[in-house]
Amino acid sequence: MKPLQVLHDTIRIETRGKGTVEITDRVGDFLKSSGITEGVVTVFVRHTSCSLVIMENADPSARRDLHEFFERLVPEDTPWFQHTCEGPDDMPSHLRMALTRTSESIPVSSGRLLLGTWQGLFLFEHRPARHTREIIITIVGG
Amino acid sequence: MKPLQVLHDTIRIETRGKGTVEITDRVGDFLKSSGITEGVVTVFVRHTSCSLVIMENADPSARRDLHEFFERLVPEDTPWFQHTCEGPDDMPSHLRMALTRTSESIPVSSGRLLLGTWQGLFLFEHRPARHTREIIITIVGG
Amino acid sequence: MKPLQVLHDTIRIETRGKGTVEITDRVGDFLKSSGITEGVVTVFVRHTSCSLVIMENADPSARRDLHEFFERLVPEDTPWFQHTCEGPDDMPSHLRMALTRTSESIPVSSGRLLLGTWQGLFLFEHRPARHTREIIITIVGG
Repeated sequence: MKPLQVLHDTIRIETRGKGTVEITDRVGDFLKSSGITEGVVTVFVRHTSCSLVIMENADPSARRDLHEFFERLVPEDTPWFQHTCEGPDDMPSHLRMALTRTSESIPVSSGRLLLGTWQGLFLFEHRPARHTREIIITIVGG
Repeated sequence: MKPLQVLHDTIRIETRGKGTVEITDRVGDFLKSSGITEGVVTVFVRHTSCSLVIMENADPSARRDLHEFFERLVPEDTPWFQHTCEGPDDMPSHLRMALTRTSESIPVSSGRLLLGTWQGLFLFEHRPARHTREIIITIVGG
Repeated sequence: MKPLQVLHDTIRIETRGKGTVEITDRVGDFLKSSGITEGVVTVFVRHTSCSLVIMENADPSARRDLHEFFERLVPEDTPWFQHTCEGPDDMPSHLRMALTRTSESIPVSSGRLLLGTWQGLFLFEHRPARHTREIIITIVGG
């Protein structure tokens, strides 16, 4: 086996308000360019008001229901929220982040991400305004 | 220290409908066979309608309450779900997956998983029908 | 690049009942002492009634709302819980753990954790009594 190494890439995603943006291909592109064939990819989002989620990437209705579910589970008009300095979407965005994921680790073999057939990796934006979001992709492997 | 290496194993779990299936020993068996003594094990489930969860593995009532909690948090008869092409359990299974975990990373030292005394790793099946589920176990270590 | 290695540290956190305790600096201190500059840090909590969460670490009101949200999402007086052998906080603590994280993976570059400006890593204690909690910090890198 080749000696293991660590490689990082930072990608920036422009979000258009709440919703999910698929980043699977961005991770796959960096993996391909790295030349690493066996290892683990760690994806990490550097924010507390957006998150990562793996979701079915075939039928968009699954993602619409995902968005709606989190709107209802953590409503913006929750009367007892104290942390509202940035508006009614401030605290719901943190809670929706805490309930999903900040890091995800995906195995790599034969130079490919070992995602299942229907799995896509998505940035889950929880704020209604446009944002530029930074995601770190780290590959440990050889 | 020995040079680090990456080893993968794919395990297949036959589920019998909704519920949790402990896979701790399957991960431990692969670790033992690998000969790796220091590192990190990443467990990754290749599906969007089942997930991973760490739970107390002593008293089965904890897992029964876990199952019931997710039945109630994401009910199958939710009237506004649009993604129902595979039946009323389709969207709830994705949401229960998104609320738990797809990957889990467990440290390894002296050839053992550093789980706490009461921690077990479980496959959490969210669909009522039987399924064959694929899980990738990846060890990075030496 | 230096050959990769694996280093572990175990930290013990004394909690004073429910709430969040920031551990970012404890992870950063171990990283600094390790001399590793490029890699991934995996943080793993060895319990089923506390968890990890990344949260904004600037305004304490965000964490108060986080605590309150989980009190309400998984109430202690839930009448159908069966797993109550250790009291009414027993099952809620497991569920709040399952809904947040047991492991978190954070990239490291130039010897620094690549956390975002507002991200802190917290131990989330779900039990009302004082506890000593063990957390394993593992660095894979060179």
